[in-house]
Amino acid sequence: MPVEIVEVGPRDGLQNEKALLPTSVKVAYLQRAVDAGLRRIEAAAFVHPARVPQMADAEAVLAAAPRPAGVVYTALVLNLRGMHRAAACDLAEINYVVVASDEFSQRNQGMTTAQSLAQWEQVCAAARSAGMRATLTIAAAFGCPYTGEVSPDHVAQLLAQAAPADEICLADTIGVGVPSQVEVLAQIARSAQPQASLRAHFHNTRNTGYANAVAAAANGITALDASLGGIGGCPFAPAATGNIATEDLAYLLNRSGQATGVDVTAAAQTGVWIADQLGITAPAQLGRAGHFPG
Amino acid sequence: MPVEIVEVGPRDGLQNEKALLPTSVKVAYLQRAVDAGLRRIEAAAFVHPARVPQMADAEAVLAAAPRPAGVVYTALVLNLRGMHRAAACDLAEINYVVVASDEFSQRNQGMTTAQSLAQWEQVCAAARSAGMRATLTIAAAFGCPYTGEVSPDHVAQLLAQAAPADEICLADTIGVGVPSQVEVLAQIARSAQPQASLRAHFHNTRNTGYANAVAAAANGITALDASLGGIGGCPFAPAATGNIATEDLAYLLNRSGQATGVDVTAAAQTGVWIADQLGITAPAQLGRAGHFPG
Repeated sequence: MPVEIVEVGPRDGLQNEKALLPTSVKVAYLQRAVDAGLRRIEAAAFVHPARVPQMADAEAVLAAAPRPAGVVYTALVLNLRGMHRAAACDLAEINYVVVASDEFSQRNQGMTTAQSLAQWEQVCAAARSAGMRATLTIAAAFGCPYTGEVSPDHVAQLLAQAAPADEICLADTIGVGVPSQVEVLAQIARSAQPQASLRAHFHNTRNTGYANAVAAAANGITALDASLGGIGGCPFAPAATGNIATEDLAYLLNRSGQATGVDVTAAAQTGVWIADQLGITAPAQLGRAGHFPG
Repeated sequence: MPVEIVEVGPRDGLQNEKALLPTSVKVAYLQRAVDAGLRRIEAAAFVHPARVPQMADAEAVLAAAPRPAGVVYTALVLNLRGMHRAAACDLAEINYVVVASDEFSQRNQGMTTAQSLAQWEQVCAAARSAGMRATLTIAAAFGCPYTGEVSPDHVAQLLAQAAPADEICLADTIGVGVPSQVEVLAQIARSAQPQASLRAHFHNTRNTGYANAVAAAANGITALDASLGGIGGCPFAPAATGNIATEDLAYLLNRSGQATGVDVTAAAQTGVWIADQLGITAPAQLGRAGHFPG
């Protein structure tokens, strides 16, 4: 089954970075992503600018985003206000987040998981009324930085309670997951919400991210979040580090015969470029090691 | 099937590092590896000291190595002279290397692959006469830094020509491999040398190393090389970077229910310690991110 890489660098990649980028650089990042073959891009978060200053210009970024045929944009929203901002920006879909533990949910969104699930029902309905797909991310599904293990049964209960999504994204927000968890959670998500396609979101915090991505592809998960450069993190999760890198993931999948449509060399150059813009060293490795065969 | 981690930091981890460590630090590294639960350790290379200065004190390191019950040492040898040096050091086994491409073989060992295979037959016989297991690594089995792709058929031919080994180690010396290659090469090795157990050796140069390790374990490969700290590289392979890290691999396997016997916390502390000794930042991530659950 083909695997689609969802480029989340413009959202999850940037939101934790101290260096605030000008809107023009964010638009150039989108252009480079499109040029490298990415076709589904999480371009922004519609959240409170005081909480995540990097996302304050979300509307301006999307207004200037390149819009060639076949490219769709999604954005993170955490409430109805964010959903309505998103609906004004010509997006194909929105992505809402329910955090799998109450403690982390309180810190991330200021509400319990139950409150967040109730709000998801409203956001989901409003998104559909606005003609957008509504995708649901279960954050910290593989473990919580505050309360430790998150049981698969708990994730199953959340998904059973959640309004039906167009897509369920299983997120290892803090990079603690391993392939055996991917297999279990994929089965749970498919069982709880059979109408939904499946997506996964991995951070490479403990070097398990790419192995998890391979496990996801082998277990019916058809979309994988990744960020050009492997930049990223969560402002409200301690010691969270980068997303798996688009270029390294595309190298792995392309070379395994699972064509992603991503031009790995262009993606690697963009990974180096965005890291330069941020004044950091990209966690992605392909930009340093080079493609193979050269 | 259980997977055994073979600690190769004292050999492959150190051989490419510019900072020459005192013998006492190398012995302390072995002690820390043993204390962290490693039971099979590639402790040195018996090669020409002018070519690999870090390995000049191989005999002294092994003379002082901790020898609790259950711990076995192996060492890299590239010719009969190295084999005889190893035989004097109370080793359980030796590991000989045949490089899968002639060009790389010439640069690494100053001989063609065919010459190297002929020499393996002599080394293998001599090792057995000295009461040691003889393991054979096929280096650059996943790709060559000089000539590009290495076909699985070529690896199959080499293994068919090679004297029967006690173990075949499939090595991705330059970190270009992907899981689909692991599956193919494991089948080839099993078919060509059915008497041998299988081992694999991965570098994380392009972030595929841990996914390859998971694929290896799923395809009947029962031993995986790794280095504490994820240090390492090859002196004669351009842009080669570290081995997969013992602590990160053990975290992944232990958390997946494949107990390795490795104390991940002790291993992570040693990864940080050896990087400090070398004046580098360890590629391993667990020492920075911390164990989960904490």
